[in-house]
Amino acid sequence: MVHRILGSDRDTASLDKALEMGVIDQAISLEEGARQARLVFLCTPLRFYSEIINRIRPYLKPGSIVSDVGSTKEEVCRLLAALPEGIWAIGGHPMAGAETRGVQGADRYLFENAVYALTPLPGVPAPVLDFMVELLQSTGARIRFMEATLHDQLVATVSHIPHLTAVALVALTEGKAENLMMAAGGFRDTTRIASSNPELWEDILFSNREQIVPHLDQLISSLAVIKEALAGGDHDNILRLLHEAKAIRDKIPRVRRGLIPDFCDIICIVPDQPGIIGALGQILGHEGINIVDIEILRVREGDGGTIRLGVPRLEDAEKAVTALQRQGIKAWTR
Amino acid sequence: MVHRILGSDRDTASLDKALEMGVIDQAISLEEGARQARLVFLCTPLRFYSEIINRIRPYLKPGSIVSDVGSTKEEVCRLLAALPEGIWAIGGHPMAGAETRGVQGADRYLFENAVYALTPLPGVPAPVLDFMVELLQSTGARIRFMEATLHDQLVATVSHIPHLTAVALVALTEGKAENLMMAAGGFRDTTRIASSNPELWEDILFSNREQIVPHLDQLISSLAVIKEALAGGDHDNILRLLHEAKAIRDKIPRVRRGLIPDFCDIICIVPDQPGIIGALGQILGHEGINIVDIEILRVREGDGGTIRLGVPRLEDAEKAVTALQRQGIKAWTR
Repeated sequence: MVHRILGSDRDTASLDKALEMGVIDQAISLEEGARQARLVFLCTPLRFYSEIINRIRPYLKPGSIVSDVGSTKEEVCRLLAALPEGIWAIGGHPMAGAETRGVQGADRYLFENAVYALTPLPGVPAPVLDFMVELLQSTGARIRFMEATLHDQLVATVSHIPHLTAVALVALTEGKAENLMMAAGGFRDTTRIASSNPELWEDILFSNREQIVPHLDQLISSLAVIKEALAGGDHDNILRLLHEAKAIRDKIPRVRRGLIPDFCDIICIVPDQPGIIGALGQILGHEGINIVDIEILRVREGDGGTIRLGVPRLEDAEKAVTALQRQGIKAWTR
Repeated sequence: MVHRILGSDRDTASLDKALEMGVIDQAISLEEGARQARLVFLCTPLRFYSEIINRIRPYLKPGSIVSDVGSTKEEVCRLLAALPEGIWAIGGHPMAGAETRGVQGADRYLFENAVYALTPLPGVPAPVLDFMVELLQSTGARIRFMEATLHDQLVATVSHIPHLTAVALVALTEGKAENLMMAAGGFRDTTRIASSNPELWEDILFSNREQIVPHLDQLISSLAVIKEALAGGDHDNILRLLHEAKAIRDKIPRVRRGLIPDFCDIICIVPDQPGIIGALGQILGHEGINIVDIEILRVREGDGGTIRLGVPRLEDAEKAVTALQRQGIKAWTR
């Protein structure tokens, strides 16, 4: 479906990298790109949308589509409404990302199984929507049409409020050395998002503040209820809240990592020596066992580490443990 | 230093597994274990401490040490104070863990670089403390003596409050299908702890509620400040809060994963075919390049996935990319 991808960026080094990686076919000016494109994606922070829309609007071809990948949709749809008649505006938000920025973070499978929200403006013809869906489905994303307002409510709950909570949790440590020393474990993961780009998030938060403010009120009330239950010694209520949260959290679809959906885990203790990961592959390969997942769990420098291996079936796991033990590697199924 | 490890558990299947894994040398009753041990570790939920201490106290040898691995220390030290004279009580809390429970989750490197807090009761002689430190350091943990109260303040900030926050964030979704659909990405990671064992956490939270309640008040105030800034359009304040949180968060020590501390990342796109992980190891091994870190980033079933490989030096990375490309595998340095 895609014949040519044109890329425009203020930063020519990014364009060079994108060309080298084969992510774009040609680097081009914004205006010339708008003139040629059948479909335009805006992929900048929200604060640049107005300027970009103004610059491209005189050049867009009738019947072309303008979409975006921004984190809020109500304000974006308002901005896209300024496009001339005969241009189809479809707001978009792929709910996937990584901590890496720019084209270096490109990943062919980034959108695989990710929800991709589309918020078309009124009047976009069905064949245009079909074209868009077919194109985006080729990334492996799960396309969901929704109202811009509903989208913004949902991301307030699952993204913006958690972001602000991470900011408040980090602030609670006051940056004190003794707090940070204790914070190296789970706290680091929980608050990862507080390390994001502040300017980008300033845009997002203010763009969606109408949804965020009432949800933040709800969170504050909910924390106050927890506080009262704890202070008042209300064991039943705390236990109920913990159970309810667990029940909901356990329902959230798992993001799959290994190369097959279900597999058995083996834990093995390996020495810290060159080529050990390749050696594990060889030992299992020799037995005809396919490693479908692998993770380095923990390591001690100059000593060794524990590695988790995923293999397709329980019988593979048992065979693998035997083969590894035969090579002097401590291993067991988990 | 350790001659024999005796294990006692209500669940004989756990004892069998521990014996099979070589985690303990012998399964034994609580009373007989107490009679023989030089050092006892209590490793149960807090609610069982009283009962266990009562059961073992008549049998403990003079000069033996009783320690624990519980998540709060002030209440634990109060309970340990009931031990007879001549028994040395040293509260302990290794700040490491995994989502796995029981002996199956055993990992020789679990405590590597983890902070291990010790809260000895008054009067424990220096040689006894030295013995304890030397023993625990052999796990790779970083031992820190601290007051039980300070410990409980610190874990309230970096563990208990984040736990309650995850519970409240999950509750905010109300378990609605549309919320959960959008929540599969970052939200899932951020709220992982809300899936923990409710009974275990009920114990921990009430055991430390004196510290948790005021810190929860602080968090609520901090969220209220954020809400006012957003509602009032105070961009400067929001941007300042985001920057401050990022600065603190970026200071938290990184938990090392790869087999050497610094390395270069390669991203490669691999087909979903048996033995591919072993093949990567072989291609790089053939070039004399050591894989020191490996992570499956994303996959598409029946198609392929992206894998991150860590190699020691930039020149290794460049050589690896060339070697992989020669085998028809799309690869680049990140």
